[in-house]
Amino acid sequence: MSRPHALTASDAAEAIRSGRLTATKLVSDCLARIEETDGTLHAWAHVDAEGAMAAAEEADSRKMHGLPLGPLHGVPVGLKDIIDTAGQPTTRGTPIFAGRQPVADARIVTTLREAGAIILGKTVTTELAFVHAAETRNPHNPAHTPGGSSSGSAAAVGAFQVPLAVGTQTNGSVIRPASFCGTFGFKPTRGLIPRTGVLQTSVSLDQLGTFARSVEDIALVTEALMSADPADPKSLPHHKPHLAAGAAAEPPVEPALAVFDLPYSSQLASDTTHGLAELSDALGARVEHHASPPAFASLPQVQSTIHLYEITHHLADVFDENWDAISDSLRPLVETGRKITADQHAEALERMGEAERWAEAFFKDFDAILAPSALGEAPLFGPATGDPICCTYWTVMGLPCLSLPLLTGDAGLPIGVQLIGRQQHDDRLLRTANWLLKTLTSPEA
Amino acid sequence: MSRPHALTASDAAEAIRSGRLTATKLVSDCLARIEETDGTLHAWAHVDAEGAMAAAEEADSRKMHGLPLGPLHGVPVGLKDIIDTAGQPTTRGTPIFAGRQPVADARIVTTLREAGAIILGKTVTTELAFVHAAETRNPHNPAHTPGGSSSGSAAAVGAFQVPLAVGTQTNGSVIRPASFCGTFGFKPTRGLIPRTGVLQTSVSLDQLGTFARSVEDIALVTEALMSADPADPKSLPHHKPHLAAGAAAEPPVEPALAVFDLPYSSQLASDTTHGLAELSDALGARVEHHASPPAFASLPQVQSTIHLYEITHHLADVFDENWDAISDSLRPLVETGRKITADQHAEALERMGEAERWAEAFFKDFDAILAPSALGEAPLFGPATGDPICCTYWTVMGLPCLSLPLLTGDAGLPIGVQLIGRQQHDDRLLRTANWLLKTLTSPEA
Repeated sequence: MSRPHALTASDAAEAIRSGRLTATKLVSDCLARIEETDGTLHAWAHVDAEGAMAAAEEADSRKMHGLPLGPLHGVPVGLKDIIDTAGQPTTRGTPIFAGRQPVADARIVTTLREAGAIILGKTVTTELAFVHAAETRNPHNPAHTPGGSSSGSAAAVGAFQVPLAVGTQTNGSVIRPASFCGTFGFKPTRGLIPRTGVLQTSVSLDQLGTFARSVEDIALVTEALMSADPADPKSLPHHKPHLAAGAAAEPPVEPALAVFDLPYSSQLASDTTHGLAELSDALGARVEHHASPPAFASLPQVQSTIHLYEITHHLADVFDENWDAISDSLRPLVETGRKITADQHAEALERMGEAERWAEAFFKDFDAILAPSALGEAPLFGPATGDPICCTYWTVMGLPCLSLPLLTGDAGLPIGVQLIGRQQHDDRLLRTANWLLKTLTSPEA
Repeated sequence: MSRPHALTASDAAEAIRSGRLTATKLVSDCLARIEETDGTLHAWAHVDAEGAMAAAEEADSRKMHGLPLGPLHGVPVGLKDIIDTAGQPTTRGTPIFAGRQPVADARIVTTLREAGAIILGKTVTTELAFVHAAETRNPHNPAHTPGGSSSGSAAAVGAFQVPLAVGTQTNGSVIRPASFCGTFGFKPTRGLIPRTGVLQTSVSLDQLGTFARSVEDIALVTEALMSADPADPKSLPHHKPHLAAGAAAEPPVEPALAVFDLPYSSQLASDTTHGLAELSDALGARVEHHASPPAFASLPQVQSTIHLYEITHHLADVFDENWDAISDSLRPLVETGRKITADQHAEALERMGEAERWAEAFFKDFDAILAPSALGEAPLFGPATGDPICCTYWTVMGLPCLSLPLLTGDAGLPIGVQLIGRQQHDDRLLRTANWLLKTLTSPEA
């Protein structure tokens, strides 16, 4: 493809660095692509055409003056509309916050700008980043959902409107939309990306993630988001994994993968089941099959208890003062959350800790778990955005998860495959993903 | 030398990474060295032996578990005692703040810890980082001053108590003590290192800097301090220069250096003048001699107006409520500051801006300015810590300055030589320094 909007972020950044492309050209072509396609897609809650063009001109001027260029110099990024941006509205997918204008950038917006990225605009989210669908459609077929809650982020990257986007996952809100929209999606280890300035729906579970069209791009954008942040109680104070190096590395020995017979296996669509089986066959002896660990069975309940209890407490004022503006999909969940006791919440956090310790021990012998990213292709567009069950366990355990767009379903829509790795070994997970992609495309596979 | 405390930070980090050394051994040897030498030197206001050993054990455990290791993994650092640390007192060189215990880390402490560094303790500063000397002595001869205001940081690195230390410079408080103590000292471009959590004495002039025993180490520690920080009004939001790459690079062509005939040339000690002349002769045609630009003459007054006006305003409550506890050296300066008008301050800021624009144009044709770091060897110990005049111009212009311990004075004490570069081209400045060191030690020089 010859238009700049279709470049990967890595290729675009390299072209800008070497002078073959300008940030101005790239940003204006992305804006043109949005203009052409977003009437159907509805991926953007706000496009900052003027601000992005001004930032692109500044980026080109820095390049001309020989000033230091970041890894994302001149590359546009879309941000889920629950991530605060000083120059743009952040309205959180609900009329309650219509016109809300944050005064400060979220921590990740500061580091993105420092890396040279240009904030193109805010991507559509479901209501308060929870269940109730927004207007965004699937880029592969507008009759279908893009998934949620990071609906616009996934759709915009899938539709080549922007090479990179940021979303959040409290259950399955990065991996599932990536699967439905045919992009790569990455939710790193809990605590690597700080959440200051991002709508808090669950202090224990909220995790940020990224969308891109290659593993290399996933590494590039995720590195620009990671930093220690004492203002976020879950932020890890330690050094972060070298994702770009991981994404470029060859494993010293062939990785060991595990496939679980998971409690929700019977809910998987047959194209997902067959696709995964073929994939696992192609990998042969590198894959070991396991029964579901008994502790897994309770994790969906654990996720739900923590999520509903915490969102009910974090957003108590929002719900109390705007009950009429809350959707019929969300209301019953808030009512359930209000009935959860502090003891039940504490008990769920204990189960979560146990599951994390199980994972820490399990990954002594395995590089990654291979699993579906979603039950199947994107369902038809409607008030919900699909089932997050394929993500729940891994989100609760805070593990890094990468969705790869490897399968195509019976209706011709994409289905993602997830690699799940060990906490804080996100670089190794990207290395394993690289190996998987190469192995699957090599002649003998 | 076989003891770990004498290793450069780069060598120590590499030894820890490869398993030949542990953080525990390195930290305990630095603590032993402090025990052996600080009775005379008085470089430390607070040594956190217990906290540093606990952090070293955690660093060794992370290494053992294969977790990501930062560039400073396990390497101890000393921090000037005006930099807030959550676990240690920060008393700012005055009894007014005796026992003061900050609740939060300064921004740079967060990024240092993220890079794997171990905060060994707090180094002695002059009173409120200004003129009145503390008890610290020169590591080369205890009868002499170490310089100030970053007295303990320079002395501790010069005495091999710790490989790295952080200080601040509002006039000449990094470069001068580095010169006197025989260490490398670096004050990067204004705005590259954020100041949140560091005592503010002049919002326009305060700049952080580093001490180390090699250019490579300067790059290593300074990279761990640089980040965009919206809470600091002077923090640059853009990408930071790649210092480690700069320090390791060879210049594509031989650098062009400039030497100025500066208004204070007549105040230089004869050993400084002769040493610089020899050095400049050895570099031959790479050095071009220039008369002092007319605008330079007013810059010491500009610095003084801004500094005194701002410190008087920033610390008004401190001075008002504790006048009896302020030294006789500082009181007259505060009294002068109180008489400076807002108009005089605004006028000085305008001169400062003009000088910056002069520098921006000048560096189109030159890689660096070569200049003395101090008038001569360290003066005898006394109530003051030496004249900062050799730093004033460059500090006002916000330029990156690197002091190299290249000369020895008539009394056998070190004298530093400064390289001054273009704003935001700090990587190129380190590259030029590398070239200079190689050129001076090569047979034909």
